[in-house]
Amino acid sequence: MAFTHQHYTLGLDYGTNSVRSLIVNTRNGEEVASATFNYPHGRDGIIEDARKPDLARQHPWDYLQGAEETVTKAIQRAKNKQANFSPNQIIGMGIDTTGSSPMPVDADGRALIEMKAFSNHPGAMVWLWKDHTAAQEAEEITCAARKSCPEFLQHCGGNYSSEWFWAKLLHCIKTYPELIETMHSWIEIADWIPAVFTNKIKNPVRNICAAGHKALYHEKWGGYPDTDFLGNLHPDLVRIRKSLEGSQVQGVDRPAGKLSAEWANRMGLTEGIPVATGALDAHLGAVGCGIQPGSMVKIMGTSTCDIIVTPMERELPYIPGLCGIVPASVLPAHHGLEAGQSAVGDLFHWWVQTILKGSEHTHESLTTQAQQLQPGESGLLALDWNNGNRCLLCDPLLSGLILGQTLQTQPYEIYRTLIEATAFGARMILERLQSHGIVVSKIIACGGLAEKNPMLMQIYADVTGRDIRVAKSSQTCALGAAVAASVAAGVHTDMNHAQARMTGTLEKGYAPSKRSSVVYDALFELYCQLHDSFSGEGNRSLPLHQIMKKLVTIRQSPGEGIH
Amino acid sequence: MAFTHQHYTLGLDYGTNSVRSLIVNTRNGEEVASATFNYPHGRDGIIEDARKPDLARQHPWDYLQGAEETVTKAIQRAKNKQANFSPNQIIGMGIDTTGSSPMPVDADGRALIEMKAFSNHPGAMVWLWKDHTAAQEAEEITCAARKSCPEFLQHCGGNYSSEWFWAKLLHCIKTYPELIETMHSWIEIADWIPAVFTNKIKNPVRNICAAGHKALYHEKWGGYPDTDFLGNLHPDLVRIRKSLEGSQVQGVDRPAGKLSAEWANRMGLTEGIPVATGALDAHLGAVGCGIQPGSMVKIMGTSTCDIIVTPMERELPYIPGLCGIVPASVLPAHHGLEAGQSAVGDLFHWWVQTILKGSEHTHESLTTQAQQLQPGESGLLALDWNNGNRCLLCDPLLSGLILGQTLQTQPYEIYRTLIEATAFGARMILERLQSHGIVVSKIIACGGLAEKNPMLMQIYADVTGRDIRVAKSSQTCALGAAVAASVAAGVHTDMNHAQARMTGTLEKGYAPSKRSSVVYDALFELYCQLHDSFSGEGNRSLPLHQIMKKLVTIRQSPGEGIH
Repeated sequence: MAFTHQHYTLGLDYGTNSVRSLIVNTRNGEEVASATFNYPHGRDGIIEDARKPDLARQHPWDYLQGAEETVTKAIQRAKNKQANFSPNQIIGMGIDTTGSSPMPVDADGRALIEMKAFSNHPGAMVWLWKDHTAAQEAEEITCAARKSCPEFLQHCGGNYSSEWFWAKLLHCIKTYPELIETMHSWIEIADWIPAVFTNKIKNPVRNICAAGHKALYHEKWGGYPDTDFLGNLHPDLVRIRKSLEGSQVQGVDRPAGKLSAEWANRMGLTEGIPVATGALDAHLGAVGCGIQPGSMVKIMGTSTCDIIVTPMERELPYIPGLCGIVPASVLPAHHGLEAGQSAVGDLFHWWVQTILKGSEHTHESLTTQAQQLQPGESGLLALDWNNGNRCLLCDPLLSGLILGQTLQTQPYEIYRTLIEATAFGARMILERLQSHGIVVSKIIACGGLAEKNPMLMQIYADVTGRDIRVAKSSQTCALGAAVAASVAAGVHTDMNHAQARMTGTLEKGYAPSKRSSVVYDALFELYCQLHDSFSGEGNRSLPLHQIMKKLVTIRQSPGEGIH
Repeated sequence: MAFTHQHYTLGLDYGTNSVRSLIVNTRNGEEVASATFNYPHGRDGIIEDARKPDLARQHPWDYLQGAEETVTKAIQRAKNKQANFSPNQIIGMGIDTTGSSPMPVDADGRALIEMKAFSNHPGAMVWLWKDHTAAQEAEEITCAARKSCPEFLQHCGGNYSSEWFWAKLLHCIKTYPELIETMHSWIEIADWIPAVFTNKIKNPVRNICAAGHKALYHEKWGGYPDTDFLGNLHPDLVRIRKSLEGSQVQGVDRPAGKLSAEWANRMGLTEGIPVATGALDAHLGAVGCGIQPGSMVKIMGTSTCDIIVTPMERELPYIPGLCGIVPASVLPAHHGLEAGQSAVGDLFHWWVQTILKGSEHTHESLTTQAQQLQPGESGLLALDWNNGNRCLLCDPLLSGLILGQTLQTQPYEIYRTLIEATAFGARMILERLQSHGIVVSKIIACGGLAEKNPMLMQIYADVTGRDIRVAKSSQTCALGAAVAASVAAGVHTDMNHAQARMTGTLEKGYAPSKRSSVVYDALFELYCQLHDSFSGEGNRSLPLHQIMKKLVTIRQSPGEGIH
């Protein structure tokens, strides 16, 4: 296609509380216009149950209403901005969503909640990623896999999660028998939304990203878990698995279908333009950051998600503790690896909004004070486990730890220490990858923390000893969806070319300071001692009684480490 | 003496910031009147040096002015209260002071600061107990003792402290050579003040309490450390030691002398009444609590001081980690044992006034919330080492630790956890005593925390599994001095009888709750694991990786422990 005409693609990013649409110039990644829509149901879009704090559901109508409202609004804004803009120039769309966020559908692929009998039924809604009602079922699946199919667990970090596809399905079947008869299949919203737009809900495409990371799908064992395995858990799982068999499982560079007349009309787009296969938000966020082998994308918000890709021609060893290893889940012909930390921004929020609540302290004021400190100067050290440890320990029952306090320890010193603790946690993941032959030489960060907190970014660079760049886009997920759409639409020949055109990082980056890194190396050694001692990992019996003394030594001569 | 006439004794309690006088009825301990005087020099009575944060000095004139003002005021108040009260009925006085708080004196026993040349000289002032300028010299003394006289250290907790007599003297000699020529001796204010009142400054009595606990005095090795030991540290120490030889070393039940005409006149008392030998405040505080074998007195404030007595006929084993073991330092014919914790009230103040500063939280509001919690309910555990560990580890470089935090952990949960941590620290001391054959079946508490915080007292009872009573008097130190005066004056035949008459505890006490104790036993086991792991004590290699899990188990079934 010639570049004399401008072409645009549209990314639709379905987050936890809202959906955003973004119109992107396929030639240079320029973000022409965007619009967001807050889901109207429940509290901030989440339907809760006061008696079941683990429950978090959504109403699928919110997604459809949100698509219509945000796309038409973004188009209007694009027109306002560029007089010659026409929606005909939008030649494809892509979609990313949270996940695993599945829901039950009938034999025609219709959401059960569409039926009068189930219009308010919590089981018929979307089971949002952070719904943890299926904890018991996750345990059952983990135990069963440990016994008969340990390879399943090697690909998902050692434990099947209550957040995932089969656990939620099993819990749904057990808890809501009234749904069983009508429920024909179980579908991720990352698949259902494109299927709606392309009028293919009866036979939807399924995306490899969610299937691989959440539903134990892998070619190695013939796709989804076999019927023996599932049947031992519950006979109805066998039936649901059969319903999945007709679906094509594919990556984001392939179209899920063509935009239907109805939805072209509702959104103000052109009928028949390709709709890319969906994907999970973090994975398309990595695409929007321009991920490639050798770099790690860190999506840094309340928690952190790390995405790495490695060429598929290389055999990957089992890497204990990684959340997921899935072929083609991010880029075609690459393994997509996922890691992450369960509390990052949330940990700092806890300190500021729960502990220091009502005081004059804010993130800004604490940062101003904390950045005056030298590494090691506070004499403090922490473990970042207030919300358990997602990687590498995969243990939700671990908890936080702070040590080194004196009677003079100040709130901003603990604030910085918590930031450092998450940076040490990030380094643990990098070192685990490295020890398994996966070298990460550069970090590309995106998300609120990456954009707003230069002190934190510098600490991460110093602790990890790696250059960190921040993604140019503030909407990397929506941008990634637009990138996928550009390939599905054939504007770019493949994801690499599309990324090269449409994504990039800010000029200003963060380089590790040699002086700080020396101290952080010493502190990281102490962090590892705490990490291994309190997790029991590696069965090492470590001498802890020197930790407090070494922190004093470091405190007394900051900049010198302990060697 | 017949009880038809009322007799009174007067206790003078020299604290860190003020002095208090208390007039006590010797028959029943009734506290008739009291008065306090804030030391006018320095900040809150403490002379500081901005360039030396470890320096803390006092001006001895403040003590004398304070005696005159508070005794005359207390007498006036007694008269106002009881029409028939006459100062002639005050038949003796006793004195307690902080310590080790020594100062240099000339050959006539005069304070060097009295001389014009030294009237503003920091070395010529009183070196207040919490002056830590002699850290290096303390280290020197500890090293020398370890090499040649290890028995010295066995009696003072394993390390000679920078707060003590010889360390301060050595630092004074090294730092202020201009004083050496004039300086003839070095005297605790607990000895100097009674010597002034009895006109015996040239040949003062020295109290066994300060000599034993602070100046390495013990009959076993012939009194003070020998001249070989001292001479190796500094030749001038030998000379000063010689100056001590003329002094009688004795306990509080013996008079230091008789009140001089001058001071009787200045204070409005009767000339010639006996002035009891001085003692350190905590030790007379224990007397004012009615200490006896089998009970421990806990003086609970910013830090905690524990006093225990055991009959001297029984040979005491070496008890590692105790701060001091001194014959007759509290009661005649009994060993006085001292232990303590370096941060108790200070630890809670740190949380409220440094960390939560500016928020709406107060000790009161946090207590109200914290007392709703069941033991173990917060899932938290802490070490109480923010100010190091005075006993049993005698290590100022240890630091605080908090673990078990989640993203929901609330400020009041940590507040309660810090209180529990100090209670576990208290239990460690009790168990150390018990394992060396010293049984403590009852605790008598005094001090601000004991009077003001019933939740804390109940936690201490539950954690230690012991009955706790609170001393009736709010001025146990001054009361103890008045008790000593009553024996020195011959109203009572001995300290036991005097205590029985003049001291007591409140009716309402704190009995351990069986239900809470079960949980605290389990938590204490985890505390011991942290304690031993982070101190390296006992060379135990303990499995820490179950601690966080066990805390979750306890949290999920409070009241059941983990057994």
